[in-house]
Amino acid sequence: LAGTLPKQKLKQDLRIEERSMHCKLSYCALFLRFFLLRLAQLSINNQAGVVNIMRTLMTPIVTVDLDILENNIQEMGQFAAANGVALRPHIKTHKSSKIAKMQLAHGATGITVATVREAEAMAAAGFDDIFIAYTVVGENKLEMLARLSETVRIGVAADSIYGVKMLSAVLGESDAEMDVMIEIDTGQHRCGVTSGADAVVLARLVEELPGLNFRGIMTHEGHSYGAQSPAEVEQIGRQAAATMRTIAAQLTDAGFPPSVVSMGSTPTAHIVGKEAGVTEIRPGNYVFHDRTQLALGSARLEQCALRVIAHVVSNPEPGRVVLDCGSKTLSSDLGKHGPGVKGYGLIIHKGRVLEEAVIERLSEEHGVVTLSPDSNLAIGDVVEVIPNHACVVANLAEMMAGVRKGRLADWIPVES
Amino acid sequence: LAGTLPKQKLKQDLRIEERSMHCKLSYCALFLRFFLLRLAQLSINNQAGVVNIMRTLMTPIVTVDLDILENNIQEMGQFAAANGVALRPHIKTHKSSKIAKMQLAHGATGITVATVREAEAMAAAGFDDIFIAYTVVGENKLEMLARLSETVRIGVAADSIYGVKMLSAVLGESDAEMDVMIEIDTGQHRCGVTSGADAVVLARLVEELPGLNFRGIMTHEGHSYGAQSPAEVEQIGRQAAATMRTIAAQLTDAGFPPSVVSMGSTPTAHIVGKEAGVTEIRPGNYVFHDRTQLALGSARLEQCALRVIAHVVSNPEPGRVVLDCGSKTLSSDLGKHGPGVKGYGLIIHKGRVLEEAVIERLSEEHGVVTLSPDSNLAIGDVVEVIPNHACVVANLAEMMAGVRKGRLADWIPVES
Repeated sequence: LAGTLPKQKLKQDLRIEERSMHCKLSYCALFLRFFLLRLAQLSINNQAGVVNIMRTLMTPIVTVDLDILENNIQEMGQFAAANGVALRPHIKTHKSSKIAKMQLAHGATGITVATVREAEAMAAAGFDDIFIAYTVVGENKLEMLARLSETVRIGVAADSIYGVKMLSAVLGESDAEMDVMIEIDTGQHRCGVTSGADAVVLARLVEELPGLNFRGIMTHEGHSYGAQSPAEVEQIGRQAAATMRTIAAQLTDAGFPPSVVSMGSTPTAHIVGKEAGVTEIRPGNYVFHDRTQLALGSARLEQCALRVIAHVVSNPEPGRVVLDCGSKTLSSDLGKHGPGVKGYGLIIHKGRVLEEAVIERLSEEHGVVTLSPDSNLAIGDVVEVIPNHACVVANLAEMMAGVRKGRLADWIPVES
Repeated sequence: LAGTLPKQKLKQDLRIEERSMHCKLSYCALFLRFFLLRLAQLSINNQAGVVNIMRTLMTPIVTVDLDILENNIQEMGQFAAANGVALRPHIKTHKSSKIAKMQLAHGATGITVATVREAEAMAAAGFDDIFIAYTVVGENKLEMLARLSETVRIGVAADSIYGVKMLSAVLGESDAEMDVMIEIDTGQHRCGVTSGADAVVLARLVEELPGLNFRGIMTHEGHSYGAQSPAEVEQIGRQAAATMRTIAAQLTDAGFPPSVVSMGSTPTAHIVGKEAGVTEIRPGNYVFHDRTQLALGSARLEQCALRVIAHVVSNPEPGRVVLDCGSKTLSSDLGKHGPGVKGYGLIIHKGRVLEEAVIERLSEEHGVVTLSPDSNLAIGDVVEVIPNHACVVANLAEMMAGVRKGRLADWIPVES
């Protein structure tokens, strides 16, 4: 079956030569790959408007509906403006300077990032007011922070004496400065101090140490993601805002009035943005929304901008099909499911939500779906999946395909 | 606090100019980033042997112990040789041509990949015998497959008439050829036909259609990952091998003797590699091993090559610390836990396994750890985490740090 015909022999010789060159150029190849990919994509891009994305791209592919994205960004900007609260969106959701620039254009006063690498990427893209909502620890990360502080305004979270001291130490003799936000635990029980007294200790230390400015307090009331109803989300938001007001008052009494009181994730931003004392909201996921936001009542289906396009690749028995998107595309993040929500994403086929289809199991490249045996989903069909958690899906992609009305319109690189 | 001193004013002006240039160059910047990163890393690399990795790199960082890696690769190569079975390792675990070349050097006869993109990357790196253990569906992926088939030997899995017909159709008039392996479901219930009769139908179709060679049958007995004991793993492996023998016999009786009978993942490779009728094993994870393999009894701690290095960044209360590795580093993959295994990874501190520490919750960049209140894990401490599932952790990294005896020795790019 695999006999070596003359033509194949020639091919083989060429292949050996090619391979030896490939070995030498392996780093170059890796380096050039991104560039060639980009060129190919630009050439596809030029056909935008006539190319149907379903026939243009290899699945699985992460798509972002640009009309929905723009609406989401605009709406949050308008909400912040109408309520007199600063909007500092969290870009960990998209890691894209392109989308972050759209957010600035619609009223954001600066951006929030989760990591020093994200800060680095955004500073390189021209952003000059970056808050790292993270308690940065580790020599090299701190040194990078100090370098960034020389050219852009950097804020950083802290919740420990160790953390604050390291921030100051790393700035050393330079004239660089960092803003410090004391992280408060308002119920998520992740990071953050829990008492006003602890906050005062840290604020005093920040003001005493060289290079640091005490800017205010921040929290991520992420326990709202575990709520079972919109009413519970609202209650958690209001309670967290009350805690922040209390701690702000204690700091003020101690002589350290916070100029910024920052909170408000996507489920709670519309709630805490109207609460007295809150000066800044930091939602992230709202640009895309996802199935978790649907379950929480924070978004409607027509507000979900990010979708994974996949093919049905197998249908071994009635009631089971396999999609070509697995944990390396959708991630294994189940979110914190609301009542009745199952599986790793919501499947849409020909514009119809397949409520009865459940992505029950993921392998790395397989999504095993159970559905009613009389379903007409067949091998070769293309589906859209609204993932449970959009932020981790974008992070798994190198590029997201920006689409308008189902057609490829732009490419969005994921930059860190 | 943020008054504009002359020096700062100058900085600001420079910044504006810089920013405007950055905007124009945003794509170039992204493109160059990888190159600069590589240069920086080469310069670090030159200091290998004197640089302690813990002080050199930003956490979280994925490390691979090269001594352990080499031992794992060597051992599997020796096992295959000793048992007269072909070894075609699955490179989805590392996506690295560097590691795949080590596997070829230690007896692998070819490689297995999960996606067309992986095949593309490995073909570009010089590999010329690639099996895609996936039922490839979708026009663009098939076209890429056809292009690859012109220069390298490509094998692909199929489990449907639709799948087989599309494979042949895409080869069209060209003289390119593809090997087809019929996928068999031996109990995982993901993809694959379940009967010899169905396998015969597909084998006949493969032989009839132009461009396709019927090469044999393959299965992934991945249900072994759900086993509760090594004995159960063994039983699953033997049962799956028996099913493969039965179907191979049915195919032979029908006039389609399979030249390859391929199976054997990391937990079962050592079992099915000794079973009659099995001609090829395709383990992947064994190069790294992980906590799931520990739980299954497929590996010992000293065989775990891949680890995530992280800092303790917060210690808000006794009994809770936070690591700077979250779901964007460890993934949310819990594996299929054996009895008594909890959380998202095994923590090692100063060479000691912290059995009582549980990574209970992950946010994107936070790993929330509960541990006994008298534990001495403190902010600033560095820990190693053996993740539940090494393959998805490598996939989340751009680069893995190759270490020897705790010092940085090489960089391993993740190539697709």
